[in-house]
Amino acid sequence: MSRFLNAGYAGLAAYVPGEQPQDMQYIKLNTNESPYPPSEHLLDAVSRAEVAKLNLYPDPDCRLLSRAIAARYDVAPECVFLANGSDDILNFCFMGFCESGVIFPDISYGFYEVYANLYGLNYSKIPLDRDFSVDFRDYCGAGRSIVLANPNAQTGKAISVGQIEQIAASNPDRLVLIDEAYVDFGAQSCVPLTKRYENLLVCQTFSKSRSMAGARLGFAIASPGLIADLNRLKFSTNPYNINRLTQLAGIAALEDGEYYDANCRKIIETRAYVRRELLARGFYVTDSSANFVLARSDRMDGQALYEALKRRGILVRHFSDARIRDCIRITIGTKQQMDALLRKIDEIMGGSI
Amino acid sequence: MSRFLNAGYAGLAAYVPGEQPQDMQYIKLNTNESPYPPSEHLLDAVSRAEVAKLNLYPDPDCRLLSRAIAARYDVAPECVFLANGSDDILNFCFMGFCESGVIFPDISYGFYEVYANLYGLNYSKIPLDRDFSVDFRDYCGAGRSIVLANPNAQTGKAISVGQIEQIAASNPDRLVLIDEAYVDFGAQSCVPLTKRYENLLVCQTFSKSRSMAGARLGFAIASPGLIADLNRLKFSTNPYNINRLTQLAGIAALEDGEYYDANCRKIIETRAYVRRELLARGFYVTDSSANFVLARSDRMDGQALYEALKRRGILVRHFSDARIRDCIRITIGTKQQMDALLRKIDEIMGGSI
Repeated sequence: MSRFLNAGYAGLAAYVPGEQPQDMQYIKLNTNESPYPPSEHLLDAVSRAEVAKLNLYPDPDCRLLSRAIAARYDVAPECVFLANGSDDILNFCFMGFCESGVIFPDISYGFYEVYANLYGLNYSKIPLDRDFSVDFRDYCGAGRSIVLANPNAQTGKAISVGQIEQIAASNPDRLVLIDEAYVDFGAQSCVPLTKRYENLLVCQTFSKSRSMAGARLGFAIASPGLIADLNRLKFSTNPYNINRLTQLAGIAALEDGEYYDANCRKIIETRAYVRRELLARGFYVTDSSANFVLARSDRMDGQALYEALKRRGILVRHFSDARIRDCIRITIGTKQQMDALLRKIDEIMGGSI
Repeated sequence: MSRFLNAGYAGLAAYVPGEQPQDMQYIKLNTNESPYPPSEHLLDAVSRAEVAKLNLYPDPDCRLLSRAIAARYDVAPECVFLANGSDDILNFCFMGFCESGVIFPDISYGFYEVYANLYGLNYSKIPLDRDFSVDFRDYCGAGRSIVLANPNAQTGKAISVGQIEQIAASNPDRLVLIDEAYVDFGAQSCVPLTKRYENLLVCQTFSKSRSMAGARLGFAIASPGLIADLNRLKFSTNPYNINRLTQLAGIAALEDGEYYDANCRKIIETRAYVRRELLARGFYVTDSSANFVLARSDRMDGQALYEALKRRGILVRHFSDARIRDCIRITIGTKQQMDALLRKIDEIMGGSI
């Protein structure tokens, strides 16, 4: 750090995103992007005529897009907050709603701990069960803010809406943030619960199931009070941060639900196929409801397998956390991409056991 | 605020952006947008084929764009920080570099005070001179972080690079942030000074002179230590916040410098024309180096003139700050737009005096 930076940030360890090589030579199975492009309807919406209007600011209130999301999720527009990806929402939630402390699972999205440190919060990481499940009882009556990804990051395992309801009901004075970045790949959304629990905030993203990682769009659904607070923080930091074309793209994606639903079904099918194939090769594979699986083989260390795959042109993600450092996380791509992965694994590990 | 928000944010007054009516029925002279569209080359760069890659994340390091900016401004790539508009940079600077206090002019970009309050900083507003000039001597040896817009916001008046150097040299242990959002409309940039003063940070934006307000792109140039700190804060909050298409658009805009330089020259000419015309009508008008002027007539209150113009389809900006509430701020549009403005002013105020 320079001598100009606040002393409080001296120990700050920033988040390390998955590799984003720009040369496109890899099969990228490391950042949970969709292998499918945006819909033709979206490509039409982001037209040359719209690009020609980039001299004008975007609507900072994102009114048209808010209304479209509200209609899609059957909530009032004042229950919707728009953001530059769901990281933007997570940042505001840790900044604004966690001063009495916060808890999250020991294995989850790594950014939660970065935010907790950034804002100097009192936090605890609650260990997942031995089978990598969240035990919802660990979060009931916790008396601190709660952040859970559902399905959970890295593992893909989900808990039920009934369990989330028990968490929200038993912590009425604390924020319960459910990060549903991966919910469209087979878990059940708890958005309907936001009408009954004013402490419940659900965030989702257009990056995964809607093929818009490059466009930066996330949204939160919660009680009007929480949404007003998020807007107050947004309008005190960077009000215009969702660009014009992204707002148009978001509306177009919502209008093309069938295309994206079909992509999700393909990914779910491919995930089942990959899981079967890896199980047949002796891997442990999480029973994932997300667009990735966490996998481990007793025959090869996670770091070594990650490196061997990378040398062969396939990027997967490896994490150094003690509990999962023997694993790799594999994004579910197309069937063809997954077959390439399986061939490379066989090449590296010498075929099926 | 909801009962979940940190008590410290109870008094937070968010920034109020200029009106952004989405129906496009107004002549918009209220948010300092360029009246000229992006270049044809940029429209080509943001192609359908690139939109089709939105399923992939952007490069969080913005390597190609950083290199292009570094080449354009003759600095090393490690001296360049990319952000989602210059507000994003201002936010990080107030968050990270101002714990020993900060000063800025009493009349300037209103967001500075919002940030100072957001982060609970000790701050003072230094009054402009009676003629709305910044007196650089007020900032020499201040012993606190310094934030100056040059040209200054709302007034458009600039100070010299020599004066900025004296401020930077006399505050070696404090950040000196020069916000050059409007520098391309006639002021001199102090970017070359960043090679000699490691406390000097210059931020600019693609929103104004490069017709990209809707795309969200700003950048900072400073010593490698300050840039590394900014990156640490960015990678601890929202690393991916500049979208793929915006990165491409930024590179294209840099490749098309002549087009944007010509637009700036047109705006400078139109500004001189509007100033002459308003002076002839008895207005006080700032001698602006930006793409706007601040104007006042003894014959009509600022709020009343703003409202009368709005009723006639022209949006200008009015501020409630005591020192400028008798003024309106007028963005310099095309000659045709300014002629429409002058006609409406004559209609409202009964012609020349």
